[in-house]
Amino acid sequence: MYNDRPKKRYKHMKNATSPVPHLTTVLTGPLLQVEKQILDNQTKIESWFRKQWRQTPAPFYTSMDIRNSRYKISPVDTNLFPAGFNNLNSDFEAICIQSIQLAVEQIGSNIDRILLIPENHTRNMYYMENVAILYSLINKAGFDVRIGALVTDDSDPSTISLDSGAELQLFPIVRDGDCVVIDDFKPELIVLNNDMSGGRPDILENISQFITPSLNLGWSSRLKSVHFGHYKTIASEFSEQIGIDSWLIDPLFRNCGEINFMKREGNTCLQSNVDALLIATQKKYDEYGVDQKPYVVVKADSGTYGMGVMMAHSAEEILELNRKDRTRMSKTKEGKKVTKVIIQEGVYTNETWGVDKMVAEPVVYMIGKNVVGGFYRVHAKKGSNENLNSPGMQFEPLAFDDCCVSPDIEKSPDAHSNRFYTYGVIARLANLAAARESVRR
Amino acid sequence: MYNDRPKKRYKHMKNATSPVPHLTTVLTGPLLQVEKQILDNQTKIESWFRKQWRQTPAPFYTSMDIRNSRYKISPVDTNLFPAGFNNLNSDFEAICIQSIQLAVEQIGSNIDRILLIPENHTRNMYYMENVAILYSLINKAGFDVRIGALVTDDSDPSTISLDSGAELQLFPIVRDGDCVVIDDFKPELIVLNNDMSGGRPDILENISQFITPSLNLGWSSRLKSVHFGHYKTIASEFSEQIGIDSWLIDPLFRNCGEINFMKREGNTCLQSNVDALLIATQKKYDEYGVDQKPYVVVKADSGTYGMGVMMAHSAEEILELNRKDRTRMSKTKEGKKVTKVIIQEGVYTNETWGVDKMVAEPVVYMIGKNVVGGFYRVHAKKGSNENLNSPGMQFEPLAFDDCCVSPDIEKSPDAHSNRFYTYGVIARLANLAAARESVRR
Repeated sequence: MYNDRPKKRYKHMKNATSPVPHLTTVLTGPLLQVEKQILDNQTKIESWFRKQWRQTPAPFYTSMDIRNSRYKISPVDTNLFPAGFNNLNSDFEAICIQSIQLAVEQIGSNIDRILLIPENHTRNMYYMENVAILYSLINKAGFDVRIGALVTDDSDPSTISLDSGAELQLFPIVRDGDCVVIDDFKPELIVLNNDMSGGRPDILENISQFITPSLNLGWSSRLKSVHFGHYKTIASEFSEQIGIDSWLIDPLFRNCGEINFMKREGNTCLQSNVDALLIATQKKYDEYGVDQKPYVVVKADSGTYGMGVMMAHSAEEILELNRKDRTRMSKTKEGKKVTKVIIQEGVYTNETWGVDKMVAEPVVYMIGKNVVGGFYRVHAKKGSNENLNSPGMQFEPLAFDDCCVSPDIEKSPDAHSNRFYTYGVIARLANLAAARESVRR
Repeated sequence: MYNDRPKKRYKHMKNATSPVPHLTTVLTGPLLQVEKQILDNQTKIESWFRKQWRQTPAPFYTSMDIRNSRYKISPVDTNLFPAGFNNLNSDFEAICIQSIQLAVEQIGSNIDRILLIPENHTRNMYYMENVAILYSLINKAGFDVRIGALVTDDSDPSTISLDSGAELQLFPIVRDGDCVVIDDFKPELIVLNNDMSGGRPDILENISQFITPSLNLGWSSRLKSVHFGHYKTIASEFSEQIGIDSWLIDPLFRNCGEINFMKREGNTCLQSNVDALLIATQKKYDEYGVDQKPYVVVKADSGTYGMGVMMAHSAEEILELNRKDRTRMSKTKEGKKVTKVIIQEGVYTNETWGVDKMVAEPVVYMIGKNVVGGFYRVHAKKGSNENLNSPGMQFEPLAFDDCCVSPDIEKSPDAHSNRFYTYGVIARLANLAAARESVRR
């Protein structure tokens, strides 16, 4: 229908290993309208973002899970300790390097030495490839960088050899007065790639060095409902600017405090909220002529790592969980107990890839206020309403062939660079929510 | 000798239209040492630059002509009104866009509308392609941009159709109180891509809008000898940091005031300076075992545009110029009279491209403090000591396949990404000289 073949100078799609998923449906519904509104208002949007970032500095780095359902595009999760940098298109390495330089500069001048603290699960080689890329990017940005291990015992430095050929040295970090150090390496900045699901590490309390993200932003303190509360406000401000219904970019949600799945406590709250959300969603579906069955996603309010998540098309599905499923919903990463949940409008993924029509979900990465790329999680065996970031999930990462920085107004709204620009805008809105969340801590 | 084949994830050389020139000589002399020293000190260098840019903000944009002679790498010209953005690798468009956002932000907040003022020679389609790229980059960076023509009469807007398919609209600019405007378009920032060789345009005097570069930096006010004076200081500070002889990155120079080629005035000054420079260069050649004949380049001290430039191996060659050559040396762009000259140590270009060993000279581009890429000027018929940026020169631009942002320490110093990093460092040193020149105005 549209000619979205790239113009020669953009050289899109030249990399045969990074094809871009296409929507399964012909885009004539409101989605195209949303994208069109975003493209038509690019200068206004960029000006608005410039103002927002002056008021609220962006987090050091983030990744945003996004779902594109033909009728709406929404963020579904915002990660302040992003892994997966190894899935990005290495063509945009320079953008990452430049963004790191800028993000560090905004934290403080006179920063030359950076300590990167990863998660402890160092046997996850896939995760360690991410650490290797982060290490390399920070190093190439012109900083002296070390990888520090959060260990409680007196371990020796360890070396990890990765499939990519990289060798990572991990040094146990030591407290020295009001600083953390590795031997004679005293960093001015500590970058956390550890979401502190297990709680705030004692060794990092009250240090005089810069630390980013703040210890207050670990999943032991953060609530998804607070994040999406900020997002709702932002989506509404933004939508007013460009004249769209904010529902088209904002998933409805409700939250329940004090839930105990094992003891079936809090069921009344769950029931009424799930019912209310399904009714509200159906009303919007009717308004936009969406012929799909509304569903909700129930998630632990503080952190998931893809755990403690379930989908339901009715309150009964949740209330009638069997023991195994209730056990699964009761715990999240590192065995943390789930006591609060957020119930979110389920957003169908109607983006698929390949002849097998595998479900594809975009993940967008940012460093500071800059979008630096993204990738698609592609999975053959999952349905369009399932969670692609679930334990044991075998997804195939497909790096974006564009770094979402700018649209190409000469092309149709669903052309790759324009789709990616829209994703970049949605990601920045979610990132802004994370930024507002951060300053209030 | 070295294996500088790219690692898979960097995908260098994938673009068959952008091969990278190789040095003709095997790099075992001091050049390799310079590059090695630069690579070994990357963190120190980046930290040093961070400090410099905090003290002295970088110009909005610049391009630096560089010469690589096996024994030294030097900047030979720094342009504050760079053309040729159309010669850069479009793969690095995102880096340009991000750098423009940053550079504009550093000029002032609340800038949404930008007026770009190009040179008046709008019939040079090659130059206009550059304007089209600048327009597109500023627009993609999220600004409302117009192209304003510096015309003295009441012209109508004109449209220029370019070979690339772009259509440019040029609007005559009008003074409105202390602002310049185009109809109801009142820009907050004016970006000059016009080097004002003909003098400061009246219409831009005492405006309240931001204007960059400053009117004081046009070639009617700037002196190359001032620029290279700053560069000498910077090269010496930098060389001390990383432990190299600053001559390896700094061309010797001397200047003569009040020259009149037509009347043969100022010959004594020319003679003594040329002699002194050739002797000093020979001394350095002896020290480094360089087996080439020293030469000097004589240029108009204020602006050239490739005009008013000559090479000489002895003072006599200059003193015995015939009438035609003296006429040629007496005038520069827009017929401006040459009254002052700078005499610079000639740096041989020992970088060649292709089986025909065509001479290749790197040109590096920066936006703000960021290197955003570059290209090689390649010319089959020129010798290694000739000026590739001369009138009527038919050069073939070869875009760099790397944006010079970071080295790859795992590769040999002469690997592409490392050579480009070195060029990026030299370009930044020259840019810093331009920055210091700018704050003093």
